[in-house]
Amino acid sequence: MTKEYRKAKTHGRLTLPSEENFYDETLELIERLGVDAIRDSDGTKLPDEIKDIEGMQVYTKYLTARGRDKNSFASMHLTEMSRFYLMSEFTTATSNKTEIYFYEEYYKEQIKPDYDYNPKEWWEVIDRTTGEVVDTSKWELDKENHIVMVDSIPFHEYTVTFLAYGIWDPVHMYNYITNDWGPEIPHDIPLDVRYPNTSQFLEDFLDEFLNNNPKTDVIRFTTFFYQFSLVFNKHGLEKHVDWFGYTNSISPEAMIAFEKEYGYKLRPEDIVDQGYYNSTFRIPSKQFRDYIDFQARFVSQKAKRLVDIVHKHGKKAIMFLGDHWIGVEPWGKYFKDIGLDGVVGSVGDGVTLRLISSIDTPMKEGRFLPYFFPDTFYEGNNPVIERKDNWIKARRALVRQPLDRIGYGGYMSLAYKFPNFIDYISKVADEFRDIHSIVSQSQPKTVATVAILNSWGSQRKWAPWIVAHGKWYKLSYSYMGITEALAGMDMDVKFIDFEDVKNGIDPSIDVIINAGDAYTAFSGGEEFANPKLVENLRKFVYEGGGFIGVGEPSAYQANGRFFQLADVLGVDVEKGYSQSNNKYFTHVTKGHFITEDIKDEIEFGEIKPNVYSIKEDTQILEYSNNEIHMAANEYGKGRSFYISGLPYSLENTRLLKRAIHYVSHKEDELKKYYADDLRIEVCAFPKLKKYAIINNSLDDLTTNIYDKDGNKKEISINGADLIWIKE
Amino acid sequence: MTKEYRKAKTHGRLTLPSEENFYDETLELIERLGVDAIRDSDGTKLPDEIKDIEGMQVYTKYLTARGRDKNSFASMHLTEMSRFYLMSEFTTATSNKTEIYFYEEYYKEQIKPDYDYNPKEWWEVIDRTTGEVVDTSKWELDKENHIVMVDSIPFHEYTVTFLAYGIWDPVHMYNYITNDWGPEIPHDIPLDVRYPNTSQFLEDFLDEFLNNNPKTDVIRFTTFFYQFSLVFNKHGLEKHVDWFGYTNSISPEAMIAFEKEYGYKLRPEDIVDQGYYNSTFRIPSKQFRDYIDFQARFVSQKAKRLVDIVHKHGKKAIMFLGDHWIGVEPWGKYFKDIGLDGVVGSVGDGVTLRLISSIDTPMKEGRFLPYFFPDTFYEGNNPVIERKDNWIKARRALVRQPLDRIGYGGYMSLAYKFPNFIDYISKVADEFRDIHSIVSQSQPKTVATVAILNSWGSQRKWAPWIVAHGKWYKLSYSYMGITEALAGMDMDVKFIDFEDVKNGIDPSIDVIINAGDAYTAFSGGEEFANPKLVENLRKFVYEGGGFIGVGEPSAYQANGRFFQLADVLGVDVEKGYSQSNNKYFTHVTKGHFITEDIKDEIEFGEIKPNVYSIKEDTQILEYSNNEIHMAANEYGKGRSFYISGLPYSLENTRLLKRAIHYVSHKEDELKKYYADDLRIEVCAFPKLKKYAIINNSLDDLTTNIYDKDGNKKEISINGADLIWIKE
Repeated sequence: MTKEYRKAKTHGRLTLPSEENFYDETLELIERLGVDAIRDSDGTKLPDEIKDIEGMQVYTKYLTARGRDKNSFASMHLTEMSRFYLMSEFTTATSNKTEIYFYEEYYKEQIKPDYDYNPKEWWEVIDRTTGEVVDTSKWELDKENHIVMVDSIPFHEYTVTFLAYGIWDPVHMYNYITNDWGPEIPHDIPLDVRYPNTSQFLEDFLDEFLNNNPKTDVIRFTTFFYQFSLVFNKHGLEKHVDWFGYTNSISPEAMIAFEKEYGYKLRPEDIVDQGYYNSTFRIPSKQFRDYIDFQARFVSQKAKRLVDIVHKHGKKAIMFLGDHWIGVEPWGKYFKDIGLDGVVGSVGDGVTLRLISSIDTPMKEGRFLPYFFPDTFYEGNNPVIERKDNWIKARRALVRQPLDRIGYGGYMSLAYKFPNFIDYISKVADEFRDIHSIVSQSQPKTVATVAILNSWGSQRKWAPWIVAHGKWYKLSYSYMGITEALAGMDMDVKFIDFEDVKNGIDPSIDVIINAGDAYTAFSGGEEFANPKLVENLRKFVYEGGGFIGVGEPSAYQANGRFFQLADVLGVDVEKGYSQSNNKYFTHVTKGHFITEDIKDEIEFGEIKPNVYSIKEDTQILEYSNNEIHMAANEYGKGRSFYISGLPYSLENTRLLKRAIHYVSHKEDELKKYYADDLRIEVCAFPKLKKYAIINNSLDDLTTNIYDKDGNKKEISINGADLIWIKE
Repeated sequence: MTKEYRKAKTHGRLTLPSEENFYDETLELIERLGVDAIRDSDGTKLPDEIKDIEGMQVYTKYLTARGRDKNSFASMHLTEMSRFYLMSEFTTATSNKTEIYFYEEYYKEQIKPDYDYNPKEWWEVIDRTTGEVVDTSKWELDKENHIVMVDSIPFHEYTVTFLAYGIWDPVHMYNYITNDWGPEIPHDIPLDVRYPNTSQFLEDFLDEFLNNNPKTDVIRFTTFFYQFSLVFNKHGLEKHVDWFGYTNSISPEAMIAFEKEYGYKLRPEDIVDQGYYNSTFRIPSKQFRDYIDFQARFVSQKAKRLVDIVHKHGKKAIMFLGDHWIGVEPWGKYFKDIGLDGVVGSVGDGVTLRLISSIDTPMKEGRFLPYFFPDTFYEGNNPVIERKDNWIKARRALVRQPLDRIGYGGYMSLAYKFPNFIDYISKVADEFRDIHSIVSQSQPKTVATVAILNSWGSQRKWAPWIVAHGKWYKLSYSYMGITEALAGMDMDVKFIDFEDVKNGIDPSIDVIINAGDAYTAFSGGEEFANPKLVENLRKFVYEGGGFIGVGEPSAYQANGRFFQLADVLGVDVEKGYSQSNNKYFTHVTKGHFITEDIKDEIEFGEIKPNVYSIKEDTQILEYSNNEIHMAANEYGKGRSFYISGLPYSLENTRLLKRAIHYVSHKEDELKKYYADDLRIEVCAFPKLKKYAIINNSLDDLTTNIYDKDGNKKEISINGADLIWIKE
């Protein structure tokens, strides 16, 4: 078989999946693409002949705390299965005896109430009308029918928080149901490393696995011990999915150990949190923060033992950022202690790229989309389109903070049937290696340091507003444009929390962004009742700093304000209380620096209603439907910018860049390393005397480009291309 | 002068303004329209010859506590002028000494700081960052420059609440500025009846006035002592206007008397309320409720003394509902004690008609629009259009709860120049007298008793969401369709407050409506933290009652719910916290009873975002932009209906009527006394065996009409007509 194909100009930094009966094609692809690592995937197995290819790194996925091969141990240690705290539905009492079928809405194949630990000790029945815990003497449990019978006050609502076994590993369950695997495949039973027997077993098992897999170079943990919240409902459909959810990490043993370490007892309610399960949108309680810390420390210690075993066998250990990653949120303080050699994560866009590339670990690898699955690779479809879109979004982030490697997943044999696709990813591989060779040598030029302020700060870098990784959410998309825009912008980006501000704002910060819906962890809610916080923020701006508020920044109804920083922003929200105060200031400032490039209507996403100007000299940049959606304000020597929402688009990226320049008084810096056409970004490496012109659109463009001194010249660039210019 | 004109078929119940040099025309109009009362207006004076017309009632307007003729007394008693508590703008401290120019934003012709009472005793400087009062030792007053110098914490915000004289009566000021009266007219100085000298003077003055005006039959007080909040800004424009505002009723004497009666001291903050000034949208504090009660009692006592004087002279006393009406909100418990013979108020629509016609007083008169002023009565304009619109809106309310009289105001000589207009109001006068003759004999048939539940209840009947009488407000219009629709609907309407519900729901109520933005007095906010409240509401519905929620009903974030009655409504609001919970229930129920007549898109007004169904069997009636705007739910034997907003329209009126029938299980009652065409309403008087067919549109219509048993027949009706049918 000889055919014309593109051959990579460069080699390495690329991981491809392979599979059985695909040896010749694998060899061909290695050459065409410059592959230096081969991996298996869920549902594939690498044959030994592939592993024997000279100079090839072999990645082997490793399921730490579940797997068919661990089921026999698990079935002999059924009290060591992983556990949840789960809440029943709200049940309204209509008399003074109420039956609560707490188990009813859950998927019986996944969840089973834990009756091994005394429910009277470990469960909670809560009157959700008063918020009070019902005394254990006032309820009885019918274990046979999974009913709690409670002495109720008529027309109060009640919930039962129950301890439950996860009897089917959630990821296995998800893949099984999604791919319609047959009944011949047994359910993976998830084990809890908290139990010494299990912990020892998992270590021994890994050791044995390594003995049996000498050709493996790299163990790719997927991931460690506790799966993020992934709970199915009675119909076997997703009920609750939270990439940051800790529901599936609890056990009485963990509660006991927690009390020993922290000196107080966790309550079931600290985990179920009124049924919100400590969503990342919730302003975290002290208890939940402590619990995260506690689990992170424990998981890190246990993970380190596994990594040590891998190292003992002379192999490398990397982890996949995603499944079963509770306790290894990689921006936590114990993560480094694990001693991992790298991380690999799924890259959907700029944010997810930087989510990975910002992790402090020796090797960062991005697994790109599309996954080689039949949902994309079917006859008549052109998978190049998705790949191009994915690459364009990721690339602008990549030039700012690079990955060390890229890779793919799925069935290679499927993708192989699309030669255009193979050609395109060969081109991307070269482009990536080109970028890496430059970007890894030097830091790109930045204009300003921008800090995103929320309850999570550096603990969840690049992660604000994410619920289930990669999914669109109505209450997220109007904010995620901020991080997505910043992912590829010529700005240094920091993530800070309210404590950081209270302790004194880092002097390197030029601009602070507070963005989110009212009373969420992203805007901060009651944090703004803290005088020190608002003092420091106001002082920061007054003395020359920039402040950008998106949505409902600093929102907390108190002391005559909804936006506690209304004085900084120049706007507040009419909640009804002050309609009697006439609102005269509705004059729109035309031709403002911030909006200069915007020709069409601005996409604000989900509008925040009833914003009005609190004073005459607030610069209103957009006013419609009797409310402000965009404004700028002078505050002492500083400036602020308000916008209702900022979904991701190239227009909004430019808008945000201009807003940052404006509030940081760097208007003069705008037209340096800059393109007039907002579809183009420029990323400069002054030390290397090089800059990249990046076309973020599919259109061929001609535009003025500005060099480091602001000298412009016209250039042309093909759709989706990246050009390096030497100065 | 003989010309063809329409002559009224009936006589009486009609008040017209007249003026000097208009005698013959007045006589003509009396005959044409069937006038039985003549009044003067602002800016006009009745000549004696008109007062002498046989059988004619003469109304004389009377300004109680201001007027050019009272200025000489006032200028000798300058510490007895009316007073305000007013708040400065928020001032951000940027160092530890901050100057607050508290007087700056106010209109110097209207407001003057009161330095006669010790500011250290009667003013408050408040740190609006902490909410704490600044100790009087930490601020100094510069009376010359009207500056408070405060020892400040840098980057806290401060306000000064100061006691101020109102040196120009607000209504006089408003008319003066609006009509551009010249400098030759002296400013009316407002007097405070709280001071014994003034009180005595006002009584003596009235007595003398009555002596001098023997031909007056009816004294029309406009109104009593304290003007609602009407504060102008430094440019002489409206700054703060609140028809329910009590800012202009305060004085140190009132504060002292209050403490004596209520056993605790009011604070200035109890009046200025963070700058919200106890807007009717604010959930009223105990202090403010007490203050309303205190002022109502005081004003009633003082007003009674004036009314007694009028009666002593053998004349009648009526009051205008509006200007200077603080303390005489006519639904209060002391109102009856005044002994008034009637009220007169301005009718803009159905709500304002019932606002007047629901007052318990012997005579209710509505002053209709347009006012005979040059802004409407100019060459080329057709004032019949405005009159027709006003009449159609008011009429449907009139047939349900009648006024005793109607009238007009302004310059009669102006209106006289528009013969078509005179003809139309002659027709209206007959139609009104027709309606009155029937409606005053019997109660119209109603389908159900509907109670509007909010913080004000029966204390402010028909008044929810009103800020400045008759003006459009962004946060009001989406709710005012409810009261406007009900004003002319075949329902008994009650207004209840949260105490009424806690004390046990009146068994005559079929349907409870809770409607308003979150955390306002209209939805109730923290009231919903009270278990008794939610218990009683749930029980009411569970046992068969109906519940209608509009906007953000029962909204109060606590215990895992935003809508505390989410279980009743079947819907709740996603505030971000539970996005991780999948939301499957988006199936729209087609062909529902409630929406059957709605052909076009429904106008929801200001949408409340992110409403979702909490369970599978909630009936979703409208779903767009990934959220619910309309839903119905079964709850025990009862039902609920949710809608995002309900601005007034004929379509929304029909929608609400259907919703009421639905939630009260009275679907079978719908097509009795009913018209298929939603532009037509039917109002029946079964005891009289009569019903009215009311065309609320300007179109000639043909439709099916249903009688008391549901038998239908086709009828035709001209645009804007009302037809009486005899059974």
